[in-house]
Amino acid sequence: MIREGSHMGSQGGGRQPKYQRIALELKAAIETGEYGPGDRLPGENDLMAAHAVARMTARQAIGVLRAEGLAEARKGAGVFVREYRPIRRRGVQRLSAGLWGEGRSVWSMDAEGWDLKLDSVSVAEESPPEAIRSLLGLAEGVPVCMRRRRYALNGRPVMLATSHLDAGLVAGTAITDIDTGPGGIYARLGEIGHRPVRFREEVRSRMPAPLETERLSLPAGTPVVLVRRTAFTEDGTAVEVNDMVLDSSAYILEYDFTP
Amino acid sequence: MIREGSHMGSQGGGRQPKYQRIALELKAAIETGEYGPGDRLPGENDLMAAHAVARMTARQAIGVLRAEGLAEARKGAGVFVREYRPIRRRGVQRLSAGLWGEGRSVWSMDAEGWDLKLDSVSVAEESPPEAIRSLLGLAEGVPVCMRRRRYALNGRPVMLATSHLDAGLVAGTAITDIDTGPGGIYARLGEIGHRPVRFREEVRSRMPAPLETERLSLPAGTPVVLVRRTAFTEDGTAVEVNDMVLDSSAYILEYDFTP
Repeated sequence: MIREGSHMGSQGGGRQPKYQRIALELKAAIETGEYGPGDRLPGENDLMAAHAVARMTARQAIGVLRAEGLAEARKGAGVFVREYRPIRRRGVQRLSAGLWGEGRSVWSMDAEGWDLKLDSVSVAEESPPEAIRSLLGLAEGVPVCMRRRRYALNGRPVMLATSHLDAGLVAGTAITDIDTGPGGIYARLGEIGHRPVRFREEVRSRMPAPLETERLSLPAGTPVVLVRRTAFTEDGTAVEVNDMVLDSSAYILEYDFTP
Repeated sequence: MIREGSHMGSQGGGRQPKYQRIALELKAAIETGEYGPGDRLPGENDLMAAHAVARMTARQAIGVLRAEGLAEARKGAGVFVREYRPIRRRGVQRLSAGLWGEGRSVWSMDAEGWDLKLDSVSVAEESPPEAIRSLLGLAEGVPVCMRRRRYALNGRPVMLATSHLDAGLVAGTAITDIDTGPGGIYARLGEIGHRPVRFREEVRSRMPAPLETERLSLPAGTPVVLVRRTAFTEDGTAVEVNDMVLDSSAYILEYDFTP
């Protein structure tokens, strides 16, 4: 039962450069567990000897694994298999009002089973980016309350999150405080009659900007995942836009749905 | 109302290298629309003159935009603003049985408003990767029907999709044909009493492997988004696992949910 129909060229492949074949072999060895997370991979000299290739070829093979984020170099110590034990972030369960209604924050839920900690918060009143102003349906010149946070897993920063809310709407609430209190932003919004009942998440990915690389301490070859979450009240008003920047090597986003 | 609380360092920033300041200026000009998609950006000579910097500094500034996937070099012609008109892929509506039940395929829905075309298909019976075998609850040695497809937008490849189904279950159905018929895989599964009613998508991102770069013609600095969709029947059995590899510059994934 092998059938094949191709309207535009074949599956690709064909002759492969030597460094790619070596890289594939190393990847297979990582997949089968021969080299586990944190293990030291063969160095340039090892690969030169084992495959009878030039140093440049060995270096390119290792370069492929580094570029794909599978391996990372530690100065003077060699190249190691990247640890990839991603945080499983569940879209639906995580936002259940049953949970944050009980006073647990959305973020402590994100952290369930993980040592995910808020390690930096700032709150400011600012002029919003145009796209966010438009999403929130605010007139030009209306300021937003911007909450900038960073989250770390076992001390390693993994996510930046910036929430935007109509500054006038949330003035005087704990949303403008460093500590928003039990249940966080959504619980406070509920208390002032703007309880979010529906959420939209828009997910994309790109390479990080220099400031993101710095704030998340990202090694080379690590893209970021961007999640823009908009929270809507019963009447369809967007009350909060949260722009999240995730270290792609630290996260799997999970969405369950029943059409 | 400016408050700041930081448990681990400041917001970062501080003194910025010159090339980063120039890169930021260029990015701002792209955001405001001064340079639109497809427009030619100032070259090294232009930047050297405008900012009184060395060629290396100008080159590094342009390098930042290329590494972030905002600009792409065209041989001999200069550096241009990348076109970014992403396909908006909706998680829930897209999979409504009301639609594929009517004989429209999931993929024609993905393509709604876009000229997204299937440009390559192959079907084979193969031994599944361990993770997929385990998801499908198959015994070791049981083969799967693997459908490998590529989709293109206006002739540009944007997604690879590989579906895995129990080969014994789907033997004799159009799922093993190049053309699965109206409504696609899910309609055919319904006809043999395995109608999918619940879906899970797991989303992550990484840099592409060489074969992915080749099959999707990815320019430098473009990560891929990986979507693993599992389709479940009423009794919770996983009947299909579809591994998708998306050009991150071509897609926004959208998920709506009401907790």
